[in-house]
Amino acid sequence: MEALVRANQHHAPSYGNDNYTASAIRKFREHFGTDAEVYFVYNGTGANVLGLHALTRSYNAILCSSFAHIQVDESTAPERILGCKLVTIPAPDGKLTVEAIEEKIQQIGDPHHAQAKVISVSQCTEYGTVYTPDELHAIATLARKHNLYLHMDGSRIANAAVSLDAPFRAFTTDVGVDVLSFGGTKNGMMFGEAVIILNPAVAADFPFIRKQGMQLHSKGRFIGAQFDALLTDNLWRQNALHANRMAKLLEAQLREIDGVTITQPVQANGVFARFPAEVIEPLQQEAYFYEWDEKAHEVRLMCSFDTTEQEIRSFASRLQALLA
Amino acid sequence: MEALVRANQHHAPSYGNDNYTASAIRKFREHFGTDAEVYFVYNGTGANVLGLHALTRSYNAILCSSFAHIQVDESTAPERILGCKLVTIPAPDGKLTVEAIEEKIQQIGDPHHAQAKVISVSQCTEYGTVYTPDELHAIATLARKHNLYLHMDGSRIANAAVSLDAPFRAFTTDVGVDVLSFGGTKNGMMFGEAVIILNPAVAADFPFIRKQGMQLHSKGRFIGAQFDALLTDNLWRQNALHANRMAKLLEAQLREIDGVTITQPVQANGVFARFPAEVIEPLQQEAYFYEWDEKAHEVRLMCSFDTTEQEIRSFASRLQALLA
Amino acid sequence: MEALVRANQHHAPSYGNDNYTASAIRKFREHFGTDAEVYFVYNGTGANVLGLHALTRSYNAILCSSFAHIQVDESTAPERILGCKLVTIPAPDGKLTVEAIEEKIQQIGDPHHAQAKVISVSQCTEYGTVYTPDELHAIATLARKHNLYLHMDGSRIANAAVSLDAPFRAFTTDVGVDVLSFGGTKNGMMFGEAVIILNPAVAADFPFIRKQGMQLHSKGRFIGAQFDALLTDNLWRQNALHANRMAKLLEAQLREIDGVTITQPVQANGVFARFPAEVIEPLQQEAYFYEWDEKAHEVRLMCSFDTTEQEIRSFASRLQALLA
Amino acid sequence: MEALVRANQHHAPSYGNDNYTASAIRKFREHFGTDAEVYFVYNGTGANVLGLHALTRSYNAILCSSFAHIQVDESTAPERILGCKLVTIPAPDGKLTVEAIEEKIQQIGDPHHAQAKVISVSQCTEYGTVYTPDELHAIATLARKHNLYLHMDGSRIANAAVSLDAPFRAFTTDVGVDVLSFGGTKNGMMFGEAVIILNPAVAADFPFIRKQGMQLHSKGRFIGAQFDALLTDNLWRQNALHANRMAKLLEAQLREIDGVTITQPVQANGVFARFPAEVIEPLQQEAYFYEWDEKAHEVRLMCSFDTTEQEIRSFASRLQALLA
Repeated sequence: MEALVRANQHHAPSYGNDNYTASAIRKFREHFGTDAEVYFVYNGTGANVLGLHALTRSYNAILCSSFAHIQVDESTAPERILGCKLVTIPAPDGKLTVEAIEEKIQQIGDPHHAQAKVISVSQCTEYGTVYTPDELHAIATLARKHNLYLHMDGSRIANAAVSLDAPFRAFTTDVGVDVLSFGGTKNGMMFGEAVIILNPAVAADFPFIRKQGMQLHSKGRFIGAQFDALLTDNLWRQNALHANRMAKLLEAQLREIDGVTITQPVQANGVFARFPAEVIEPLQQEAYFYEWDEKAHEVRLMCSFDTTEQEIRSFASRLQALLA
Repeated sequence: MEALVRANQHHAPSYGNDNYTASAIRKFREHFGTDAEVYFVYNGTGANVLGLHALTRSYNAILCSSFAHIQVDESTAPERILGCKLVTIPAPDGKLTVEAIEEKIQQIGDPHHAQAKVISVSQCTEYGTVYTPDELHAIATLARKHNLYLHMDGSRIANAAVSLDAPFRAFTTDVGVDVLSFGGTKNGMMFGEAVIILNPAVAADFPFIRKQGMQLHSKGRFIGAQFDALLTDNLWRQNALHANRMAKLLEAQLREIDGVTITQPVQANGVFARFPAEVIEPLQQEAYFYEWDEKAHEVRLMCSFDTTEQEIRSFASRLQALLA
Repeated sequence: MEALVRANQHHAPSYGNDNYTASAIRKFREHFGTDAEVYFVYNGTGANVLGLHALTRSYNAILCSSFAHIQVDESTAPERILGCKLVTIPAPDGKLTVEAIEEKIQQIGDPHHAQAKVISVSQCTEYGTVYTPDELHAIATLARKHNLYLHMDGSRIANAAVSLDAPFRAFTTDVGVDVLSFGGTKNGMMFGEAVIILNPAVAADFPFIRKQGMQLHSKGRFIGAQFDALLTDNLWRQNALHANRMAKLLEAQLREIDGVTITQPVQANGVFARFPAEVIEPLQQEAYFYEWDEKAHEVRLMCSFDTTEQEIRSFASRLQALLA
Repeated sequence: MEALVRANQHHAPSYGNDNYTASAIRKFREHFGTDAEVYFVYNGTGANVLGLHALTRSYNAILCSSFAHIQVDESTAPERILGCKLVTIPAPDGKLTVEAIEEKIQQIGDPHHAQAKVISVSQCTEYGTVYTPDELHAIATLARKHNLYLHMDGSRIANAAVSLDAPFRAFTTDVGVDVLSFGGTKNGMMFGEAVIILNPAVAADFPFIRKQGMQLHSKGRFIGAQFDALLTDNLWRQNALHANRMAKLLEAQLREIDGVTITQPVQANGVFARFPAEVIEPLQQEAYFYEWDEKAHEVRLMCSFDTTEQEIRSFASRLQALLA
């Protein structure tokens, strides 16, 4: 916010040719390597779809988890903008495995069928789990073997880095990710995400893809300034550390409550749990959360950079009270 | 073929404004009702995709079997041309059930998710099975309840009509199908399919959809004349009767062979069977067929209007010999 | 900016279900009528293209000036996202006339040709001129006569309202505009534009169009709060009044300089002028401006809400000095 | 037709893997060079749009005459399927000139604007005129200079070859055309056009583009057999020679009639003329023709492979009689 106030004080060149943007890009390159091409867009759907645009032609298929944000939460933007088919892969804990992916790489060369070209993973996954660098490296190796690209939806990438206690590049640049969506909004920004192109061979036409995709901001400095602040003094890390810690605290509190089952490993800032059906609605009055699987009464509880310990404890108490 | 020779003899107005086309449309309306709008296109993919175009906007989802031709065999044409997401439904015998469909009609009104708008069934199904009129009526009722449309891929509709021993309209117009692809090529034509719009409310812009979809033939009389011939003296019926009979003969022959398992009910012109792995390739030399499921060694054997008894018997003998 | 700081202080529901957004929409309806549906998007290209999406199907043509932003400055977003053809109309002063438009409404009903469906005007125009309410009413009447819609690109609509000294609705709702892009960024906002749907018959699917078009902001309150502030105490009007006054001042200064020709009536915040070729580049060092027509050495000088008198006078002096 | 009857007599592999198709492709390569990749599609719109698909990405512009078939007669198929903008160039006699094209190659590298990537010429042009090899070579040279491709709509290419008395390759392969639509329907076929890719660098993904574009024929032998016949014993040449001769005869007859003005050089099989307004409609009863420019009463008279001398003379007599 302070970064925005500062960015608001002077005139600046438009469309991202400003100093804030230049500084933010420099900082991104410290994390991802000097070859990284960095482009700012408005939102997560824009980042994912346009990043995938750089990797596909319209007769391609994109392999992803059946829970992937691009499959479940982006309307038909991937199909409509890319023309591609999303081929979904079961991933009970949110993570794709080499075996499950390989089963879907079929009929390459046969024009009757959508041609697999990209594997898209989410880091953290939609189930709040986190791929290890080794797991991602194995997937990238599979991708290379079949002449596919590896895309990463990193809308919560900061939470993954904190969870792995590893630098960003250890599980992106170094393992062979080609294109990455780097989340800003979920890490505290008002608006703005970054598409980071790690494979220089697919970077050339992104400026055209972004403009055509209606994601080029005229006053680009307002995204640049926010990312610049986020990457300064490890602000991103503090935000994500806090959110992950709150999730751990929530998990601990929930484990002590009879009738509640934690359904996924808590590795980042999300907790998945089964609640008795009757408490869900009254509890949502306390603090809104998403009922992930209505049949199983499985809920998704997300902690963010500004969730407080007090909120966690009050949520757990309220749940206790409802169950009593 | 004779029909084409005749159609070739004189000048005729172009783009379907000719007498052959008019006559064919008249005959289609005898089958499907006077409200049916009939448009000729080039191929099955064109018929399906453009028929679905009349029923959708680009943020919609189309529900279909995971084996549906539109899902499996039309590259990304549905996604690219329509923008829509195909949502697949398990259908072990090729047929969708009301229960399985209803489970996928979710989150209507929520813009984050593709909005279900069409149920697409194949008649015959890709597994050679045939929906009864009652089954289709139940699906159409479900569609109406949820404000969806019902689309039918009828590339083998003649085989279904023969199998049911019912007029076309008994399982299309009368049960509530909105748009139908009526197959010509698989019933003996050189080229040409028909899109039959049974719901007048969605018919108005099909001429524009067809032209934009690159499926308007300038010398339309050559499709019209073939359909006209097919619908004269029940030629379509003779063709399909013959193909279905050949499938029954093939089934009977295969049932007598040890080591062969028939995997689906034989209701039309296709036979699905499991063969011992080692005979598949040598047998394909005899007569090419498609290995439907490579892991299960399940094969798809299709009979057509010009398959002969001799061919069936020779195929079965060869299989016997290979197994001996 | 202060509005953003306030909006940042508390949690709020996401995706536009917050109080800031509700308040801004209420204020928009005071201006445009209670039937107006108001949706916030990220940028001008998004507002124009998605607003047009609500009015078209993919076989349509959109009639616009050959200088229109949608034709010249939005890459191929209109073609790619809408599928439509843009049909351009000569407009020497930026304004379409009834006669010029009518000449392009041709071959309606013939599927070989893109079907005209929308007239899109810019208010102010790209030449800084302003349609009178009567001119717009005549165009809307023409649109109704031919069953077309009227779309307005109002990225500088505040400047037009000030220029006409008329309420917004006098030249939008009251004359028959169907869909309007209401500019925020050019009136001082960090990001955010509004699509205002004045014809209720085309409003129903905009939420889906916006999400699919990747223009739905999760933290919608940050757009809502800015528009709310802009519409409070006529802040929009002060901003636009100032910009228009600066343009008048600039015009007056330029008219006193030999060798400079004003090429368009100065009706809002833009001044178009022909400069001697040799001064253009050195002058751009002083304050960047766009060379509108490189052959004619015609330049476009835009004044904004934060242009100062001092900047205008210094620019004029510098030009004088260069010419001396 | 005889070719079709023969092709109909035996079973053949589907989707173009048959001997007729192989033979036709061999003959095409004799004309266009051994590197030519040849793909059959259904119609002219399909050939043009999919050929252009091989040359473009969706943020590109295609430069063409304002009379080009792709601009005027293909609905919005180019925009919808390609995403590209068509940029039109005035061409009073149907032919683009290097100067007129170069004026439209602007703002390359600027993402705000559609990026010119293809020059598309028609040979013969829509005005019945024919580019010389030198003219085409100059355009190809311009294309190379600006890193653009050269596309040719050759729906009447046979008439152009006859007019130039030159082999096909003299004005295609040898001058630097990248992709060519080779017309079948206008040269006597029932259906079928060819996309000929002369630049091997853009050929690889055409099979996928064709299938996705709904232009792959399952019974491909029926297109292959027709092209095979057309290319045997110079049948194409006889057809085109005849049509061009008929146009010359028609021109000669019209030149003798007072009140008729020939408006374009008659170089192939089309004659453009201005008729007195009152005769146009009664004359269209005699033989339908297209009123090219309704304001100027300019008509387009096309001769085909089966136009007879008798028809020409009777048309001219009828015109005489109407004028008397």
